Formats: sequence, C-alpha cells, structure tokens
Amino acid sequence: MFFASDNTGPVHPKIMQALADANTGYAMPYGADPIMEQVTTRIRDLFESPDAAVYLVSTGTAANSLILATLANPYDTIFCSPVAHIHEDECNAPEFFSGGAKLTLVGSDNAKIGPKQLKTAIEGEETRGVHGPQRGPVSITIVTERGTVYTLAEIQAITKIAKSYGLSTHLDGARFANAIVTLGCTPAEMTWKSGIDAVSFGCTKNGCMGVEAVIFFDPKHAWEFELRRKRGAHLPSKNRFLAAQMLAYLADDLWLENARAANAATARLTRGLKQTQNTSFMFEPEANIIFGGWSRAGHQRLQGAGAQYYLWDGALDGDDPTEVLNARLVCDWSASDENIDRFLALIKG
Amino acid sequence: MFFASDNTGPVHPKIMQALADANTGYAMPYGADPIMEQVTTRIRDLFESPDAAVYLVSTGTAANSLILATLANPYDTIFCSPVAHIHEDECNAPEFFSGGAKLTLVGSDNAKIGPKQLKTAIEGEETRGVHGPQRGPVSITIVTERGTVYTLAEIQAITKIAKSYGLSTHLDGARFANAIVTLGCTPAEMTWKSGIDAVSFGCTKNGCMGVEAVIFFDPKHAWEFELRRKRGAHLPSKNRFLAAQMLAYLADDLWLENARAANAATARLTRGLKQTQNTSFMFEPEANIIFGGWSRAGHQRLQGAGAQYYLWDGALDGDDPTEVLNARLVCDWSASDENIDRFLALIKG
Amino acid sequence: MFFASDNTGPVHPKIMQALADANTGYAMPYGADPIMEQVTTRIRDLFESPDAAVYLVSTGTAANSLILATLANPYDTIFCSPVAHIHEDECNAPEFFSGGAKLTLVGSDNAKIGPKQLKTAIEGEETRGVHGPQRGPVSITIVTERGTVYTLAEIQAITKIAKSYGLSTHLDGARFANAIVTLGCTPAEMTWKSGIDAVSFGCTKNGCMGVEAVIFFDPKHAWEFELRRKRGAHLPSKNRFLAAQMLAYLADDLWLENARAANAATARLTRGLKQTQNTSFMFEPEANIIFGGWSRAGHQRLQGAGAQYYLWDGALDGDDPTEVLNARLVCDWSASDENIDRFLALIKG
Amino acid sequence: MFFASDNTGPVHPKIMQALADANTGYAMPYGADPIMEQVTTRIRDLFESPDAAVYLVSTGTAANSLILATLANPYDTIFCSPVAHIHEDECNAPEFFSGGAKLTLVGSDNAKIGPKQLKTAIEGEETRGVHGPQRGPVSITIVTERGTVYTLAEIQAITKIAKSYGLSTHLDGARFANAIVTLGCTPAEMTWKSGIDAVSFGCTKNGCMGVEAVIFFDPKHAWEFELRRKRGAHLPSKNRFLAAQMLAYLADDLWLENARAANAATARLTRGLKQTQNTSFMFEPEANIIFGGWSRAGHQRLQGAGAQYYLWDGALDGDDPTEVLNARLVCDWSASDENIDRFLALIKG
Repeated sequence: MFFASDNTGPVHPKIMQALADANTGYAMPYGADPIMEQVTTRIRDLFESPDAAVYLVSTGTAANSLILATLANPYDTIFCSPVAHIHEDECNAPEFFSGGAKLTLVGSDNAKIGPKQLKTAIEGEETRGVHGPQRGPVSITIVTERGTVYTLAEIQAITKIAKSYGLSTHLDGARFANAIVTLGCTPAEMTWKSGIDAVSFGCTKNGCMGVEAVIFFDPKHAWEFELRRKRGAHLPSKNRFLAAQMLAYLADDLWLENARAANAATARLTRGLKQTQNTSFMFEPEANIIFGGWSRAGHQRLQGAGAQYYLWDGALDGDDPTEVLNARLVCDWSASDENIDRFLALIKG
Repeated sequence: MFFASDNTGPVHPKIMQALADANTGYAMPYGADPIMEQVTTRIRDLFESPDAAVYLVSTGTAANSLILATLANPYDTIFCSPVAHIHEDECNAPEFFSGGAKLTLVGSDNAKIGPKQLKTAIEGEETRGVHGPQRGPVSITIVTERGTVYTLAEIQAITKIAKSYGLSTHLDGARFANAIVTLGCTPAEMTWKSGIDAVSFGCTKNGCMGVEAVIFFDPKHAWEFELRRKRGAHLPSKNRFLAAQMLAYLADDLWLENARAANAATARLTRGLKQTQNTSFMFEPEANIIFGGWSRAGHQRLQGAGAQYYLWDGALDGDDPTEVLNARLVCDWSASDENIDRFLALIKG
Repeated sequence: MFFASDNTGPVHPKIMQALADANTGYAMPYGADPIMEQVTTRIRDLFESPDAAVYLVSTGTAANSLILATLANPYDTIFCSPVAHIHEDECNAPEFFSGGAKLTLVGSDNAKIGPKQLKTAIEGEETRGVHGPQRGPVSITIVTERGTVYTLAEIQAITKIAKSYGLSTHLDGARFANAIVTLGCTPAEMTWKSGIDAVSFGCTKNGCMGVEAVIFFDPKHAWEFELRRKRGAHLPSKNRFLAAQMLAYLADDLWLENARAANAATARLTRGLKQTQNTSFMFEPEANIIFGGWSRAGHQRLQGAGAQYYLWDGALDGDDPTEVLNARLVCDWSASDENIDRFLALIKG
Repeated sequence: MFFASDNTGPVHPKIMQALADANTGYAMPYGADPIMEQVTTRIRDLFESPDAAVYLVSTGTAANSLILATLANPYDTIFCSPVAHIHEDECNAPEFFSGGAKLTLVGSDNAKIGPKQLKTAIEGEETRGVHGPQRGPVSITIVTERGTVYTLAEIQAITKIAKSYGLSTHLDGARFANAIVTLGCTPAEMTWKSGIDAVSFGCTKNGCMGVEAVIFFDPKHAWEFELRRKRGAHLPSKNRFLAAQMLAYLADDLWLENARAANAATARLTRGLKQTQNTSFMFEPEANIIFGGWSRAGHQRLQGAGAQYYLWDGALDGDDPTEVLNARLVCDWSASDENIDRFLALIKG
C-alpha cells in the first residue's frame, strides 16, 4: 500500500530488459550512441515534429531548469503557478541555472494558471523599464501538482496570451503520459499544436529508472541547450542507458499502457473513496494524484497497517478520531487492485 | 578494438544483476532507500572514515563541480593542473556551480602538479587584498588525465602545502580504482591519510552504468552539499538504482578486480607497443591510459581495420607514412587480450 | 513643481562644498583615505555600535543586493514585501548578487510586512527538506515604498519572529532619515536595538550626490562583504569623494535637517490636498511620499503647467474630467512652499 | 611625491566646476537627464560612430565586467593577458557578471597579447565540442598594465585574428587618453577602425572623480547592456553628475590635456631615471607608467622622505644597500616637475 509518490515504484520489466539488451560491447559516449539516434527519430515521429531538438537527462529538475535557462535571460521573470514544482520543489534550481531569473507566481485555481490571471501578471511586469525584471517564459505543469489536468482549450488560452506578448512557453510534463491518457489527445496536440515551445517529457514516474526527455520544437535552441546541459553536469557518458530506457518506454505504447494503469488505479481508488463515508476531495482527481480527506481514525488504521502516503495537513496524533485530515495519494503504473481495495477497506474500518 | 575511452564500455554483469535485484517494489526516494544506507556504511568502512558524508551522483562532472562549489567561495580561485578535467572538459561547470570562482592553472609535468609550482601559485594569489581572487581549494586528479599516478609521497607533498595555507583539497578520482591498483595502497591512504578532504570516487569508467560517489571526510559540509546537489538537479528520485550499482561495485572487490583487469590490459598493450618499432611514449603509462606514437601507416592500418581511439596530434591523412603521430589509448575492465594482440599486430603491419 | 521622486533633486550645497574641500592632493584609494576613517567613526558613534562594519557604495541597489548576498545563501529565500524595491525595482539584482536566491513575498498592508503574515510565510518554507529553498533573511523597507513608516514596535515584532527562526534581518533605509524624523527615535533604536542586523543607509535621496552606507552591526560579515563589493565592481578608487559626502551629510545634523524639510513639505502638501475637494489617499502619508487621488481635470491642469509626478493609475487623457486618478508625489529636502502652494492651487482649479 | 597610482590624484578643477554647474534644480534620473544626451552626442562625434550605444558607470571594473558579460556567454572563455586587470585585479568580477565564463590567459611580452599566441590560444579551444568552453571575446588593455602601448598595427593584428574566428573584441581603456597621446591617433582609429567592438573609456584615472564610459559601436548590444547594468546596481539615479564629469572631460580637449601632462611627467621621470646610475627598466615606459629598478638605498631615501609608490619586488629592508629593487611609478595629470625632480634627486642620493 505505497501511495506516497510515483517516483519510487518499480521499474517496468521491459525497461529493465532494454537496459540489459543495450549492454553489448562499446558505444560512443555522450549521446553519440545509435540508440540515441533511434530515440530522436522516435520522439520526432511521436510529436510529429521532424526538426525537434531532443535530449535526455536523468532528473525532472534538470529538464525543467535547463529548458528554462535556455529560454529565459537572467534579467527575466518566469511565470508559473504558486504550487509549480519549479517554484516549490527544486531548491532554486531555475534561479541557479538561469543565472538569477525570477519566478512570478500567477494566482491559480486547482494549480492551473488562469488566462486572466496570466494576462494580469504579464501586464504587471515590464512597466518599469530596466528597473523591473523583463517578461520571460510561461511555464505550466501537466498533470498539475494538484492532480488536475489542463484541457487543450485551457493550454491554448494560456499559450495564446504568452504568444501575444512574444513569450515562450514550457510544459513541465513530469506526468506527461498520465495527462495524455486523461485528455485522449496526441502528444503534438498537447504541445506544439497548442502553442508549447519546449517540453520536459517525464518518464521516471511512469516506469523508467531515471530518464526525462527535453524537447524543443524549434531547433534554434539546440546548441545553447547542449552547452548548458554539459556545464550543468547533465551529459552522461553512458548515455545509451538513458536512451535504451526511453526507446523501450516508447515502444509498443508502453508509456501509455503504464499511464493507463496508473490512472485507472487512481480512478478505482477515487471511486472507492467517494463511496466511503467522510471522504472529501480538495481537488477533483483527473489523472493519478488524489488529494482527499477522511477521518483521523481512518488514517491511523491505514498507517498502522503500513500504508505509505503523505498527510497534507493535520497531525496523525490527535484527540478527535473523527477529525478529517487531508492526504495526498499517488498511484504509479504498478498499483494493484488488491492493495487499493485493502486500503479502502482500512479507511472504512 | 575500442580504446577510445573507458567511459563507453559495457557495464559489468554483476552491476546489471544488482540493478535487477534492486527492482523490487517500492523504495523511499531521494536517497532514503535502504540500499543507500548500506552504501554509506560500506564506503565509510572502506575509507576507514566512520563520520564521512557520502553521496551519489550520476556524472563525474557533477561530483567534481558540486564538491568544489561546496569548498570554494565565488571569490576564490581553485588550483589545478592545466590539463585537469575540471578545467578542460567540463564546459565551465566548476565556474558555474561555484558562482564564478576562478581556476588557477599550476604548471605541471606529466599532468601532475608539483609542490614547488603549487607553492609559487598559491603565493601569487592573495597579494592584492580584495582586488585579486582569494586562495581556494587545491584539486588534483588521480589517475591524471595523462595516465600518470601521483605517489602517496607526491600527494602528501601537495596537501601539506595546501594545509600550510589553510586550503582544502579535492581529489578527482574518476579513475580512483585504477590508481589504487597502481599504488597498492588503501583508499584511506590515498585520501584522508594523505591530506585529502573530499573525493570524487568514480565508478562509471570502471564497469558501472553511471554513478560516482562524493565523499567528504569532514561531515560539516554535508548539508550544504545536499542543498547544492538538489539545486544542481543531481538528486535522483530513484536513488536506489545508483546505490545498487555502488553496492555491487564495492562487493567482493569487484571495483578492484575491474581496475586490475584494465591496468593489466594496458600493461599488455604498453609492453607490446614498446616491442614495436617506432613506438614512443609521451608519458609513462601508469594505470589504464597510454599516450603513445607510431607511424601514420600503422594508424591507417588500425583505423582501416576498425580500431577506435583518439589521435592526439597530427592528421591521419598525410604524405609521409613514416611520420609518427601520437594517440591516446584507454583500456577499461573489458579489454580482451585478443583485441590487444590484434591491435599490436596491425601496428606492426 | 517636481514631485516625481526624491532621487533627482539638487545636491545640498554643503555636500558640494565637502566635495570641493576633499579635492586636495592625493589620498589612498579604495577606502583607505582618512575621510573614510572619520566616516566609520562617525557612523559607529551615530549608531552607538562601536564594532560595526561600515562601507560606502554609490547606489541603493548595490547596498541592498550586496548586503543580502552576504546574508543569504544561494539556496535560501529572502522574505520581503510584494512592493519591496528589492523585488520590484532592481531588475533581479538580489537574485544576481546572491547567486540565485529566491524572494518570498509576504502579504502586507500599506507596504508593511505584518508579523502574522511573516510567521506564516516562514513556516511555509523549509517544510520540504532539500527540495524547497531554505529560510533566509527578512528584509523590510523604512520608509516603505508606499510612504508609510513602521513603528518601532512593528519593527520589533518582525525581527522577533525572524530571530525566533534564527534568521537575519535587513533594513532597506533608502529614506532612513525621513523615517527617523517621523519616528523621533535614534538610529540605534530604529535598527539594532529593534533587532536589525544590517542597514542600507540611504543618503542620495536626501541631498547627496550618490552615496549609501552599508552597516553590519556584527563585523563578522566584514571581509565577505568587502570581497563581494569588489567583485560586484562597487569599490571606487576615489572613495574619498563618497566619504566626503557622507561626512558632510552627518555633520551638524544635515541629514536630519534635510529630512525634516522633506517631511514638512510633504505634510504641507498633504494638508493642502486634504482641504481640497475630491482628494483621497491610498495610504496615509507618514514621511515624504504621498499616494493621493484627485480629478482628471486637476491632473490635466497640473501637468499642463509643468508639474512632474507619476500617475499611479489611470490615463491623463480621458472623457470624464471628474474621474479620480491616483498619483505618487515625493518631496525632497529642496521642495519649496511656493511650489507646493502653486501645485495645490492648480489642483483646485 | 605620490607615484603610487593615477587613481588617487585630485580631480581637475574644471570637472569640479562642472559638477557644481550641474547642480541646478531637478533632472530626470537614471540617464534621462539632458547632460547625458549631450554626452552621448559628444562621444559619438568623438568616436565618429553615430549609432554607438554610450553609457556611464562609476568604476572601471564595472565597465569591463558589464561589457564582457554582454559579449560573452557563460559557457565561453575570454582571451586576455595573464596580467590583465580583468584577470588579476577584479576579484572574479568578469566571472561573476558573465555567470561563470572562464578567462584564458594568452602568453604575452610586455603585457601585450601577441597575434601568434592569440591564434594558438584560440585554436586550443573549441576542440572538444561541448566539453570545453567555447571561444569568447578577446580583451586587450591599452595602456597595458605594464605601461606599454599597442601600436595600431598590433591592435589590428589581434582583432583580425579575433574576427577571423568570429570573436568580438573589447578594449579596456582605463588609460585610454594616455594611449591616444602616445599613439597620436584618433579615438576611432584606436578602436573600431582597428577592429574593436566595445570600449571601456576610462576617465577616473585622468582627472575625473569617478566615471567611465562604455561604448558599443554596434548598438545591438544596447538593451541587454542596460539590463545588465541595472541588475549589476550600476545605474545611478543622479546620473547627471556622472554625465557632467564626462562632458567637461571631453570639452576643450581636457582629456587630452590631462593625458599629455601625465605622459610628459612620466617622460621627464623616465629621462631622469635613465640618467641615474643603476636604474634599469623592466618595460619601456610608453605612457604614464614606469617599471624601473634602482638601489635599495635609493628606495630607502625616497620612502624616508615620504615618496609613495609600490615596490614591485624585493623588500625595502635588507642588508645590501646596492641591491636593485623594482618599483612601479605612475604619474597622473597633476604630477609636478618639482616633485619629479625632487624624487630624482633623492634616488641619486
């Protein structure tokens, strides 16, 4: 009953097999291996973007920070949600990689940036000449950090505003696949066809060992990115083992299969929680993350039985067994019906 | 016949097996996994340093840059060899991670810093108050970038000088194991017992997939390093797969076994080259790297037969078949006698 | 009728005289001049802080950014008001000088940080281990960017909270003298006796040509600051001309005399505006800045007559002559009663 | 007898008068003052460059570092002399402002970069793809830090090489006027007509209080520079007092008059030293700096009589009164024949 995060589950056996298969003799280092060439072709095909610049890095923070440093000047400000991973969970990595750019937090509902709020935020900058920061890229996260998913129309509304000010756009797709499953659209539709310039295409949370793709649809950014990646120490010598993961991940729709499993498990858990007395939801679960609340007694039973997840507020210890405490639950591709049902049974008591 | 580098050979089967074995269910992320706990204990034992702070990162540049950024202030200068990897091959990563520290190049023979040269270089700084950079850490590489190995006495001579000025010391051990095999000493003897404060303990070049340990013998640096690692985007969620590599690498002396194989292969190649007419050496090969020269005709035969290695100077094409061109050859753990002998036969023609 | 800012008025004649007087022969450069020695003594006396480290720089942004870079680690976040000069008007200088620290905006009334809001903001950080930024210094501005002045009790409430978390405190005193006049307290009372660790002591806006003092009450920060100042290119060779300004500024209470004149002019203007029909105030003017609104017709008469000030909202051109538009008015030491009365007469029409 | 530096002499009376004259009422801040407009026109005329972007800053380190940060990417290396001010005397300011660029030291005679050495140095970079730093701007200093002056042909030889690699060029003209006097050429000839892209036009050492112009002959760099200047805290509110200095400096050829005086004084001193027994020269004095050696006894007499200058090597105290110790002597515009002759008399004993 591990629902703490999707970043700690097992690696999918097909990915493991691909690593083993890639381990044959020598391969040119630093991305010059033949598997990487296949990855580039595969991602360009998948995203219907024949000129895209494609790179692999080993962490999502690296993907995000390196992209933003490439898109933003150090005297710019990056527009993002107050709960964006780049703001809350990267220990100032975007500020570091960009050489001191600022993040402007755009008020949001359900962790989504709203178009009006974005327009107001953008209008609020560059009103002071050289004195204030300049308008930089707009960054959104899909699936959001609160488990919600922008619709294509919502993405387009945001990128349209960004483009009207000449600003570039970044999609933090740490859970890209889960969002695709929710939206039922193509990768191209969720990205460049909706106005996105660069994507952190996350795989680690969805069955890989540690690999994220960076995709710039306009290859003009390629060389600068490569230099920033190297000086950020994110160019692995044995790149073939990142590439092998990615190739297997994209083969036979494994990436979608895993995301479908994670989303389905989350839906099962959500349905079960809805049927449970005292369960409320902070946000409507739209992919593989749930923010829900139930009684302290339920939490105590669960955690006593070894369930792992984060309490979002409140303390497990407390006098009132009926008090509702919110929790965050995340399902990855490996979540089993058995564990979910056991979890639900424990909540009910 | 792949002698281009030791960073692109195969991963040792025991490491692959360890990855497979680690892939069981869930594990706490970001270094809180139980395998990492074992790694910490194992490295502390191996280095006879019970309080050492131990971390894993996925590239050598990350290990070097993050250590140096922790040891150096942005207004310092780091003392290193003109051919140091941190100077020549990291695209300004030490400057980036440190926030703008400088590197002072210390004249050296055989890629080693000499004590007199170091003393002169140190004396040359901090002579201008706030106007010049301040004296920062001293960084040496063992095995050096030219294939030579500092003796323990040489290391001690350098660290003694550094300490006499209150400077900290870093060992770039991208080929740590190969050096240990050459010197026949313990890890403690090659590091803290010889005055080294922090080590980049490289494993990727010696049979791992992508993992390097960072070791601070004084744990006072621990928390700052952890923050710098995270904001450098070098804290992987699925850290257990770095840890599993490292644990297997250190188990049953696999790290030494691999390094012995690489050094022995290099010795075989060196002996063969010495027996070959026209073969000269730029540096005496002391571990697993050879800088040697032979005729253009020999190079043409080799490269025509598919041998891979870097020409260090000169052009393969040229009129004079007898002209001597230098090359760099590197053996990793997997180099076979068969390939070496075939290589030697081709040189001879 | 120049009320656009107090950063563009004339230099006080006594300051000009001091510059002329300082121009005698040679003086040691970079702060080693004898006038600087007198300045240090004078500021230590004035602030009742015999060990304070005292430096001069030529801009307020330099004072703020260099202090904050000295107090904050690059992985920290600095707590400040959303309208703080360091956030809105320094083009990411604090982020730049600190090597990428973040600014956390603390909701505030009248541009003041409230203690409860600060406590909430501090509690909101360091909840994620290495993933989020670490808690850094708290920075407040007195006189605030909206013309209000913290009481001593308000300062103390803020610094008490900061200290309870072990955080250092910075006072942006771009209009330090105006605040002292408002509060009627001593410099020591407004700073270290109220828990402030470091001060940007502004003089440029109050009759100097271009000089701000940096004061650390704990001299442990001295050397690091000196190095950061030099590498920030803020160490002038002919420092004596900064020092001469400062010495004259502090002699015979010129600094207080100028601030009294500026505040008195502002009070006269405020009284006049209050007597004028249709004048509203966004904030209560407590020093030398007014945020007030009156009819478009009044603005049109004023600007037609050459009055200079910033419209805070709304457009001068518009159909409705009775619509109230807010403006920012600032008085410096040289504001004349005649100009104020003429200004008021024009508003009334 | 103050020959320690030209950065600490008196401000020329005409500059002081200009400051007083500029102190009339209000002026728009941050460079929008009418005097700055005149300065821009005047400098464009003087440099025969009608589109040049012109800015003022208060220190030479600011001019150099901000220009280099504008011309260099953080992953570049800047080519300069080992004794360049930007390398030795700016406490890593170029590294800081550029976000971590490197400086490659180009072996030189007489503090001048030689064309062959430059070509070798440039060829030595960008040989490693993303692994090494990329080739960045070439920076030369005229008058050099050793008192020598590049001929126009020498400048052109350097810039021709830089241009052949597509590299931009910077001239650190801390002593620009002294070099012009030596060369007897126009500012345009010494800069853009000889292939220079950007100039630090120093004035502080030649009779100003504290002002240096930044000149980009191609205005494409203007806006980036303005943002970097602001976030570097080098945009003064009361810019008119920088502008007033500059305007007076350029009026009636005061800048040349002052430099002629300084160079003439240096020539007188050089002649006198040559006539003095035991005086040797480390470099041929070509502008206003002398590196010369004479007996310890001579130094002792001088320093006993209050002469101020830097000993370049050796210690004043010592057994041998005849030992030759080198010293650096610098004359500014105000050096008097009387002091020079007194100085010479003391050397002779």
